[in-house]
Amino acid sequence: MLNQNILALGKKRSTIREIFEFGNQRAKIVGRENIFDFSIGNPNVPAPDSVQQAICDIINTQHPSSVHGYTSAQGIEDSRTAIAESLNARFGTDYSAKNLYLTAGAAASISICFKALTASPEDEFIVFAPFFPEYQVFIEHGAGAKCIVIPAQVQDFQINFEEFEKNLNPHTKGVVINSPNNPSGVVYSDETISRLSALLNAKSEEYGHPIYLISDEPYREIIYDGIKVPFIAPNYKNTLVCYSYSKSLSLPGERIGYVLVPNTVDNFGDVYAAVCGAGRVLGYVCAPALFQHVITRCAADIADISIYEENRNILFEGLTSMGYNCVKPEGAFYLFPKTPEENDYAFCERAKKYDLLLVPGTDFGVSGHMRISYCVQTQTVRRALPLFEKLAKEYGL
Amino acid sequence: MLNQNILALGKKRSTIREIFEFGNQRAKIVGRENIFDFSIGNPNVPAPDSVQQAICDIINTQHPSSVHGYTSAQGIEDSRTAIAESLNARFGTDYSAKNLYLTAGAAASISICFKALTASPEDEFIVFAPFFPEYQVFIEHGAGAKCIVIPAQVQDFQINFEEFEKNLNPHTKGVVINSPNNPSGVVYSDETISRLSALLNAKSEEYGHPIYLISDEPYREIIYDGIKVPFIAPNYKNTLVCYSYSKSLSLPGERIGYVLVPNTVDNFGDVYAAVCGAGRVLGYVCAPALFQHVITRCAADIADISIYEENRNILFEGLTSMGYNCVKPEGAFYLFPKTPEENDYAFCERAKKYDLLLVPGTDFGVSGHMRISYCVQTQTVRRALPLFEKLAKEYGL
Repeated sequence: MLNQNILALGKKRSTIREIFEFGNQRAKIVGRENIFDFSIGNPNVPAPDSVQQAICDIINTQHPSSVHGYTSAQGIEDSRTAIAESLNARFGTDYSAKNLYLTAGAAASISICFKALTASPEDEFIVFAPFFPEYQVFIEHGAGAKCIVIPAQVQDFQINFEEFEKNLNPHTKGVVINSPNNPSGVVYSDETISRLSALLNAKSEEYGHPIYLISDEPYREIIYDGIKVPFIAPNYKNTLVCYSYSKSLSLPGERIGYVLVPNTVDNFGDVYAAVCGAGRVLGYVCAPALFQHVITRCAADIADISIYEENRNILFEGLTSMGYNCVKPEGAFYLFPKTPEENDYAFCERAKKYDLLLVPGTDFGVSGHMRISYCVQTQTVRRALPLFEKLAKEYGL
Repeated sequence: MLNQNILALGKKRSTIREIFEFGNQRAKIVGRENIFDFSIGNPNVPAPDSVQQAICDIINTQHPSSVHGYTSAQGIEDSRTAIAESLNARFGTDYSAKNLYLTAGAAASISICFKALTASPEDEFIVFAPFFPEYQVFIEHGAGAKCIVIPAQVQDFQINFEEFEKNLNPHTKGVVINSPNNPSGVVYSDETISRLSALLNAKSEEYGHPIYLISDEPYREIIYDGIKVPFIAPNYKNTLVCYSYSKSLSLPGERIGYVLVPNTVDNFGDVYAAVCGAGRVLGYVCAPALFQHVITRCAADIADISIYEENRNILFEGLTSMGYNCVKPEGAFYLFPKTPEENDYAFCERAKKYDLLLVPGTDFGVSGHMRISYCVQTQTVRRALPLFEKLAKEYGL
């Protein structure tokens, strides 16, 4: 008598959160410091001081009713303006408050976009493996559309265009990209972006309706080696940007982010209205108010993410020198090496012996891999290396 | 190519928010103090000092990563325990953390319950007019079920049992109640609750499956004349309680609340899991973290709501003495008088001449009425009375 799909999702939860809970339980037994939890993307870098100061300053100087009251559904205008100005300064765009709809984080942003765009159960959204597994949950169970998975191009984790093109058809409503990528850490190249845009333009024209590009960008600022991440939206007119301050301001639990609908989107007014309507339908009244005020002041700030680059370097060099095989990540805070046995679940279970908590690649649509989330203390990374080495030896690497 | 229902919801928004926006625009022209905005339930009572102190204290003493990090999907255990203990102390219950799932406010709680319980598009949820209009949006467009409206019993706004019983059938999945009520301010009597429980027990038995009672209780603490509001859950075993701290702690914009699933609910484990699954499907990752920590400290606190009783007294006495006809509200912060003409939209439009912002009763499923939300400064109430009187005179009251 309950919805069995939803019941199953509630019972299983995501593997990531399951491991996270396992880690919490183990920590009570062996101590938090002896758990090498590489399972969840919970940033360990503190929120910047400017955020902490903004919170106290807002609480101490503004009237509680104006701080904690309902806001407009689309968000406080000053907050949206601050975000638009920050984007414009960085990317040379000309967004304004009316292009932004504030949300309770990127998961909300993405769910809202799928719900807004789905007009029929025949509608299809394409995702590229490896991908954040909740996309499929939101598409199938939240929006009631179809999720089409394009197999990974494992040698570099760019887009497998041959497979992609085969799967485009008149039911294709949208395509989801996530660069820098969770879980591979790979940043889409200029070439990938250009080819993607050209293909989507051609197919939109052929089918007589727009194919929306949903660009999930919570890791936009977390990039290494001084590379530039191409800002997607100006490259393809029907792009909706989903953003979260979870990573750039280290505020994952506070649930604050946005959907950006550029003026270039076909029928801009309708698409923006559908986003508002979808937020309403899903029960999002407004984004958390205090953090809207914080964003007004801190939209351009960024946490000290240098620790992530150091962690990446230590882990990538350490693991590859032990014989693990891995595409070098240029962003986000994940490594996605091959597992030494094809059964990634078995490998991750074996890793638990050492209290190494890893997520099987199968959960991201690519078997035979593991996700290592390295947003942890550098000391944790260093202390974990000998354990990875023991594991490698078990496999004769 | 967009979802037309959702597009329409996004374009129209709720009438309440539409009026709220109209008020914001008018305020820029004639000044905020000359707008008599009785349209939205945005509490004007400040959050209690304990909340403000808790925020600063948490920010100043806890590590940012532990404050702002992801929490378990169901919420921080300490926070859920604090809520359970607060309920147990007040109502003599024996809840614990495992009965609670923290949410981004009551709208999230309710959406999540509908989504969790809906197993088929034939499933029906019953609401009693007058009712919060978003129930219908969440049921039909969020969960994909049917919303059955029971006409109001206008003489006292208790339940119209005759009509209710006619509409119960094997498709009935749940019944929504909201006492103290938005928009009528009426509190369900002990007699109403007993009769409701008896009927739902009999019908659950007859149909061979539970009919869930979804009790939406954001106004539970806002009651007048020293009356006691019966706590619903112990009266009917298959009750799910949806709560928000929006009103009791004056934190509507912060989006913090919960779903309570008592142990008495049939298949408790499955129902709780379905709630978790529904939260996941709708894109709620966790309730806003800082305010989970605040609730750990302030679960038992309450804002100074005495102003609401004063406002009620002034308005109720003022309006009835002018000839308006109104059921006396015993809770919440709404008055729901008859409009002097049957066309409540026309009446509310006419009221705008005086910058009196009221919501037509039709929006709550009862035409010929208006909702007056009096969570405003007492001075605003006093200054509005002569305007209500001018309006009354226009109608020859």
